[in-house]
Amino acid sequence: MKIKIKQNVLVENLNYVIRGVSSKNLIPILNCIKFDLKEDGLYLLSTNNEFAIKSFIPDKDIEEIIELGELVISGRYIYDIVKKLGNEVITIEEVIDSQVLITTTNSSFKLNCNQASEFPNIDLEYAKNPVKLDKITFKTMINQIIFSTSTQESRPILTGINFKINEYLLECTATDSYRLSKKIIKLNENVDNEVNIVVPSKNLVETSRMIPEDNEKLELHIFSNKVIFKCNNLVIMSRLINGNYPATDKLIPNEYSLTIKVNLDDFYDAIDRASLLTNEEEKNIINLFIDSNKAKITSNIPEIGNVEENINIINNENKNLNISFSSKYMMDAIKVFNSEEIELCFNGEIKPIIIKNVNNNNLIQLILPIRTF
Amino acid sequence: MKIKIKQNVLVENLNYVIRGVSSKNLIPILNCIKFDLKEDGLYLLSTNNEFAIKSFIPDKDIEEIIELGELVISGRYIYDIVKKLGNEVITIEEVIDSQVLITTTNSSFKLNCNQASEFPNIDLEYAKNPVKLDKITFKTMINQIIFSTSTQESRPILTGINFKINEYLLECTATDSYRLSKKIIKLNENVDNEVNIVVPSKNLVETSRMIPEDNEKLELHIFSNKVIFKCNNLVIMSRLINGNYPATDKLIPNEYSLTIKVNLDDFYDAIDRASLLTNEEEKNIINLFIDSNKAKITSNIPEIGNVEENINIINNENKNLNISFSSKYMMDAIKVFNSEEIELCFNGEIKPIIIKNVNNNNLIQLILPIRTF
Repeated sequence: MKIKIKQNVLVENLNYVIRGVSSKNLIPILNCIKFDLKEDGLYLLSTNNEFAIKSFIPDKDIEEIIELGELVISGRYIYDIVKKLGNEVITIEEVIDSQVLITTTNSSFKLNCNQASEFPNIDLEYAKNPVKLDKITFKTMINQIIFSTSTQESRPILTGINFKINEYLLECTATDSYRLSKKIIKLNENVDNEVNIVVPSKNLVETSRMIPEDNEKLELHIFSNKVIFKCNNLVIMSRLINGNYPATDKLIPNEYSLTIKVNLDDFYDAIDRASLLTNEEEKNIINLFIDSNKAKITSNIPEIGNVEENINIINNENKNLNISFSSKYMMDAIKVFNSEEIELCFNGEIKPIIIKNVNNNNLIQLILPIRTF
Repeated sequence: MKIKIKQNVLVENLNYVIRGVSSKNLIPILNCIKFDLKEDGLYLLSTNNEFAIKSFIPDKDIEEIIELGELVISGRYIYDIVKKLGNEVITIEEVIDSQVLITTTNSSFKLNCNQASEFPNIDLEYAKNPVKLDKITFKTMINQIIFSTSTQESRPILTGINFKINEYLLECTATDSYRLSKKIIKLNENVDNEVNIVVPSKNLVETSRMIPEDNEKLELHIFSNKVIFKCNNLVIMSRLINGNYPATDKLIPNEYSLTIKVNLDDFYDAIDRASLLTNEEEKNIINLFIDSNKAKITSNIPEIGNVEENINIINNENKNLNISFSSKYMMDAIKVFNSEEIELCFNGEIKPIIIKNVNNNNLIQLILPIRTF
């Protein structure tokens, strides 16, 4: 293999595939990036068998393709080296003894390589009718619900996001069994087969960060054991989590005994301040007391002190409620809304709290209250 | 004590004194900030007995002084609370039972206080003829030499910066015995008594960060056991490190067998890249080979690969030299120069390397070479 390529072009694409390289992987070949130079351009590939990334640089963006071939290079080293080279043309060339020579005008790196044949073969196949999504819609959805996934490996199914498609509705759910986040996205095209998969949240975080914010659609190619995200010249594969995702529909009520409307920023800031006098070990409990069109948030750490925050309620249902919950969960849930006002819906002090936009149910956050005595 | 004060005014001054509060201190009163409201304004004070900070808010910047008095409040809590309150007028008021009430329109915090009488009495006295320094000069000096101080407590004297004053010359030195940094500052006024003190580097880092970048002079009030920095409405006290600082003057030669002039950025970038193929456990050793007006930097990790970087030497003494040193120490030393070109001076492969500006000796960096075989 021999190629001449501009440093900025190569860095931009290495920035993607480096996310698939774990420096901690015990199988050395999985710490590598595969360079596959074909007639149509350079394919860069990384994988840890659960997550794979392929980035393609078409020949028009390459200075010179001199000799086709494959190279498997330590991901960390090639990434750091290329990043620190100046923005000039880099020559990458396989020399004898499975070594690669990386040269610019004044720099010359010689790195030992792995055997290209040992690099795992990742089958990046495509579905006939992929689900097409607006990229910003996808990235926003991930950001709005991913914090509710569980970090505990005791119930692996809860460490992922559930994607359910029924005709033209995509429903994405995350829950750690103490809180739940759900986003409903209307698709432009009907999907023939019902979809019900769970994608590991750490792969979705990486995927979301990689997807550029442009107008080209993101394609989801869904298979029984994997999902492939495709956009621009980037292909990302994630394995799925096996098992049945809990049925969460029944958790969200259709009716509420009390709904209050508050200014999002005022409510967030009040909880943020009240949480200063809470203990993390005690789940950052704060108390909300609603009395007609006024609300009070209180919390205390006995040896330190206490706080009382007063909130204005925009509507007035002329009802009372006294409920306790985690300030951290509430802040996570409300800060992802992109509106001036939000609604908080209650069915008494021991039933879930629902947070949503005033005018629609596209994004729903659910928090279980905490009983206090 | 009772005061009404704007949130932004209080935050600005708490930003200073919070740096003197350690949350890890085992003596609870040292985790506190003392509020001392006098007729001329509010004094805020923090100390850990080795380092003390006093910030003064004059009465003209206070909304209302209602009742004079003293309060000692948990530093972490009062800082976080005031920071999170909106930019409005805050009322701080001592209520019965050594409690303080902090209120704004919608927020009300009640915090337990410590006894003001238990707060250590820090004697922030002033010298008759303080040393006066330009603030930016002081901050630049700290930044240019502090990295050479030792982090090892086995020789405490090397964990500080040595300030020596002889008439109108201030000489500041830092060394960990493997490298040395020295800055010489010309004072505007003669200093009568010779000064030779060592100030703990961690206190100097905090002091340097606090000093605003304006045209008012920084005053150094030097005593036998402490130094007091004074500027604007800020007073900072640091204890000194006892002991004799090693005589370092003889370490810097007057003559060199070889001096090369290089472009700073090119030289830095070449070392930065070469250091990618070095091991931290082996002190990041790289090799510099000088041959007339060319130089080569090389390094390698046998199992990974090797690198060769070519450097242009601006002058030409038509001499050869082969020398090895820590790439990390060299990068630390050269990145604090603020010039396009620097000089590297040598006296053979086992004598210290000196780095300095082309036209003056105000800033000198010294690095010991490492012998390789």
